[in-house]
Amino acid sequence: MLPMLKRFLIGRPLKSTELGEQRLNKTKALAILSSDALSSVAYGPEQILIVLITVGMTAFWYSIPIAIGVLLLLTALILSYRQIIYAYPHGGGAYVVSKNNLGMLPGLIAGGSLLVDYVLTVAVSVSAGTDAITSAFPTLHGHNVGIAIAFVIFLTVLNLRGVTESASILAYPVYLFVLALFILIAVGLYNIATGEIPPTLHSPIGTPVAGISLFILLRAFASGSSALTGVEAISNAIPNFKDPSPVNASKTLMAMGGLLALLFSGIVYLAYYYGVIPSADVTVISQIAEMTFGRNYMYFFIQGTTALILILAANTGYSAFPLLAVNLAKDKFIPRMFLVRGDRLGYSNGIIILGIASILLIISFQAETEHLIPLYALGVFIPFTLSQTGMMLKWIRQKPKGWMPKFIINTIGAFISFIVSLIFFLTKFTQVWSILLFLPFIIWLFHRIRKHYEAVGDQLRLTTCEPSSPIEGNVIIVPVAGLTHVVENSLNYAKALSADQILAVYVSFERDDEKKFEEKWKKWQPDIRLVTLHSHYRSIINPLTKFVDTVEHKAKEANYQVTVIIPQFIPKKGWHNILHNQSSLLIRAFLLYRRNVVVTTVPYHLKK
Amino acid sequence: MLPMLKRFLIGRPLKSTELGEQRLNKTKALAILSSDALSSVAYGPEQILIVLITVGMTAFWYSIPIAIGVLLLLTALILSYRQIIYAYPHGGGAYVVSKNNLGMLPGLIAGGSLLVDYVLTVAVSVSAGTDAITSAFPTLHGHNVGIAIAFVIFLTVLNLRGVTESASILAYPVYLFVLALFILIAVGLYNIATGEIPPTLHSPIGTPVAGISLFILLRAFASGSSALTGVEAISNAIPNFKDPSPVNASKTLMAMGGLLALLFSGIVYLAYYYGVIPSADVTVISQIAEMTFGRNYMYFFIQGTTALILILAANTGYSAFPLLAVNLAKDKFIPRMFLVRGDRLGYSNGIIILGIASILLIISFQAETEHLIPLYALGVFIPFTLSQTGMMLKWIRQKPKGWMPKFIINTIGAFISFIVSLIFFLTKFTQVWSILLFLPFIIWLFHRIRKHYEAVGDQLRLTTCEPSSPIEGNVIIVPVAGLTHVVENSLNYAKALSADQILAVYVSFERDDEKKFEEKWKKWQPDIRLVTLHSHYRSIINPLTKFVDTVEHKAKEANYQVTVIIPQFIPKKGWHNILHNQSSLLIRAFLLYRRNVVVTTVPYHLKK
Repeated sequence: MLPMLKRFLIGRPLKSTELGEQRLNKTKALAILSSDALSSVAYGPEQILIVLITVGMTAFWYSIPIAIGVLLLLTALILSYRQIIYAYPHGGGAYVVSKNNLGMLPGLIAGGSLLVDYVLTVAVSVSAGTDAITSAFPTLHGHNVGIAIAFVIFLTVLNLRGVTESASILAYPVYLFVLALFILIAVGLYNIATGEIPPTLHSPIGTPVAGISLFILLRAFASGSSALTGVEAISNAIPNFKDPSPVNASKTLMAMGGLLALLFSGIVYLAYYYGVIPSADVTVISQIAEMTFGRNYMYFFIQGTTALILILAANTGYSAFPLLAVNLAKDKFIPRMFLVRGDRLGYSNGIIILGIASILLIISFQAETEHLIPLYALGVFIPFTLSQTGMMLKWIRQKPKGWMPKFIINTIGAFISFIVSLIFFLTKFTQVWSILLFLPFIIWLFHRIRKHYEAVGDQLRLTTCEPSSPIEGNVIIVPVAGLTHVVENSLNYAKALSADQILAVYVSFERDDEKKFEEKWKKWQPDIRLVTLHSHYRSIINPLTKFVDTVEHKAKEANYQVTVIIPQFIPKKGWHNILHNQSSLLIRAFLLYRRNVVVTTVPYHLKK
Repeated sequence: MLPMLKRFLIGRPLKSTELGEQRLNKTKALAILSSDALSSVAYGPEQILIVLITVGMTAFWYSIPIAIGVLLLLTALILSYRQIIYAYPHGGGAYVVSKNNLGMLPGLIAGGSLLVDYVLTVAVSVSAGTDAITSAFPTLHGHNVGIAIAFVIFLTVLNLRGVTESASILAYPVYLFVLALFILIAVGLYNIATGEIPPTLHSPIGTPVAGISLFILLRAFASGSSALTGVEAISNAIPNFKDPSPVNASKTLMAMGGLLALLFSGIVYLAYYYGVIPSADVTVISQIAEMTFGRNYMYFFIQGTTALILILAANTGYSAFPLLAVNLAKDKFIPRMFLVRGDRLGYSNGIIILGIASILLIISFQAETEHLIPLYALGVFIPFTLSQTGMMLKWIRQKPKGWMPKFIINTIGAFISFIVSLIFFLTKFTQVWSILLFLPFIIWLFHRIRKHYEAVGDQLRLTTCEPSSPIEGNVIIVPVAGLTHVVENSLNYAKALSADQILAVYVSFERDDEKKFEEKWKKWQPDIRLVTLHSHYRSIINPLTKFVDTVEHKAKEANYQVTVIIPQFIPKKGWHNILHNQSSLLIRAFLLYRRNVVVTTVPYHLKK
């Protein structure tokens, strides 16, 4: 049943040698890796207006200079990341770059931030996409959480199938979204040029605004920079590109930067000229689309592709999170299971954990994105800052030919990212303070895990010359519950092992029972010694463990090994197991984990 | 953590020898076992009026003759059950009586009905009690399901602590409820006698009613007989009484019958005289109390004790369900786990399962009792009929001295119970049809389980002389993952077993890896043969299982036993386990359940 369902959802297993085929060409990579960044224009411009409206509608003209600032920031980031792609063709992004150039702690800060940020990517994007859908179809309001969770499950299954197959499905919506926004911007600009949109809707640039302050402008700028989340995705995923991967990745990055700049400027300008007021019910893009086309098929086309790209933006998280987890797991900071490739060659554990974490986040925030976006953006700009700073040090240390322009580019990138991070802390502290608790905690956890792996490695390595103690003999303990074929089977096995001593142990709950059993036993197995233990509290494990302890203590002195042989009958059908008390399983787990005895299970397979 | 919480909630474990102390004296037994029956007066009279109101308020006078019919039914049942108590002093109630006298199938019909009925007892009583609370405090409306679930959890914990301790807590509310209703009835009758309540509120007995029919009267009678649910509880729980248990149980039964008759008659009469109209929001008792006392402290005392006894009525289910489950499990019709006494000597598994099932029922019916009561009452009257019929046959077969009056009493009981069951089917088919699907299903399940247990018993019994095949030798397979102390440890153990052949098996995912490993192995363990398997799909289990199959096939021909020795390192702390892929656990489970090999786990305990 379950394996069949798995095959149906995920597809046939792939051989390890099929890995090469899973790589991405540029067109598919642009779709798969830039949906996060491109979809940000669906909420970035709106975030600027949400801050400015606190002063008044006349302040909306400030969105134009703020947008120019965001575009400068974008240019700096794109150029900086282009250099990272060539310097680190094996990918890894902020974690690897920071670790290699700045040291372990900055690397872990970047890695920890990003790990959580990818969960936020999924939660924020899917929730925003769901909002877009419920905006267009108000009857669906109130089902946001359910819809969002369904999308996360859908994406998780898609990614478990493998990255190329996902890309084929995901490419169309991304390109349709770009097309839709280009049409919207073009028609919007045409309407403005022909004067169909009256210029009275907006306040002219330079209008004096009462109550505006540098604090508010910085806050609006920081909010607007949330449109840049996701630009780092490509630099993290270079190994997913077809060869030559750095060249292809770099070209894809530039294409993405260009598209993002065009769409962002277009939407900000239209929103400003149309005088759009941000509202809790209708998104800014929805308002622009409605004012441009009315509620006709073009409106639904734009809303539909916006919703789709937002939901698929979450997919960037699915590409990036498992790869980052692999890098962290290779360095032993997170559990080794993230290194295992699943049936379809994707890092299944990372994909599944990401899905679960996002669903939990969606449930606890009830699919409301407003409170998550600042944390999300900050979680991106901290690693931005660290990786650019790392690049600066790299250039200074290595000083390759023509390093000076590269150094300047990364310095600008680092400086701006740092300033943006600082602005977030200063202007949105109430929404981002939790990162100050979370980052130290996760870094402490990273170190605990690493310490454990190192301790285990030390103890297992043969070079640590702790001599293995020789085994001089074997004492066998067989817990028995009755005179049955199962017990007979186990006793035969014990005899065949030519042990030095075999002890059968019977735990009785009632005194009368003991003597009867001992008599029967003497007749049945006269040559195997039976020990009877009485249990006051109707527990088998407690008296048995005490007995095993006593035997082990004596055996140890003579370098004897104690083996507990557990007779277990295996029912023919799985559901039969609930009809039998699983004492043998409990005994095994208890002895193995708490005592230094070998536990042997002798199965007796029932035939009906 | 968890064990401490368990100790706090449930108390210290009790020795098996402390069992005697857990028995009940008559006062406590009356409280614990009759709360179900007595609490039924909180909804029984109301059920009659709900049917009569469909004709009109003038029909309310029919509640008096109907109540007389219910009282006759009660008398017959009490007398019949009194005979059952003496005839079956070890308890068991309808299941045992029907099984012994009528045969297995009627026994199982009775047992199956009751098993489900006790779940309904808990669900209905707790929900009705919650209703009483939310009637008095309307602000709590809308939280019914949550409150009801909290009460079920509370009762479950109480019963896991053990039956006597529960009784001490439960005795007071039951007696307070009886006191409260007696005061209510007394003051009500006084008011009627002094003429404070005008006789104009009710229609005189004998008033002709348009539209009344036998169907409606029978329906009202059946509804009213739901006030008798719970009278069988005492006869099921005789072993819980102090010695001489049958005498004590019989006295308790008579006391309960008397109290029930008085309370039921009183409430029906007051409801009739006051002209109370049943309403969805306020219970009949609440209306009577309000009209008698106003909304003062006496009103809240009556509502409070009513709510308490209703919730505690659920406790009857907790006393009866585990005992019935023990009887069914002894006959191998339900899983053996119901036979195990927990730390506090209660049958914990029955208690826990009952709690979970009731919560599920409360959730799926949203704590609305109206639809459950008919099913609940029918589930009681089917076993009533069967056990009384069984008693009839018993008297006819055994013919003890003076059997004739006993036979007549049971015959009347059987006949009336049968008629009531029939009336339920005829007049409330839409609410009780599901029992016609459910009963055959559960009886089929009972037989499946019994068949399995019998098959297992046959196969395990030594008398079935299938000769155990001798073990001529031992082939040992050791799956190895690297050159470590863990593997060294396991190999030392394997060597100490003086096996005929030891095979180390290494599963590699990459071709390059294989040769390197083989070379290292030759240097390290030159005298143990290494087999290298290549896994295309990154699975360890598949190639390993195939290999084990091949070895087992060869070994079988020579009567050799195959043992798989799994090296496993045990981390020092529990949480460390999530940091290591649990391949050894998977391998063990897979081999043990699917193949006929002995699986030995050699632990290597890490020290840090």
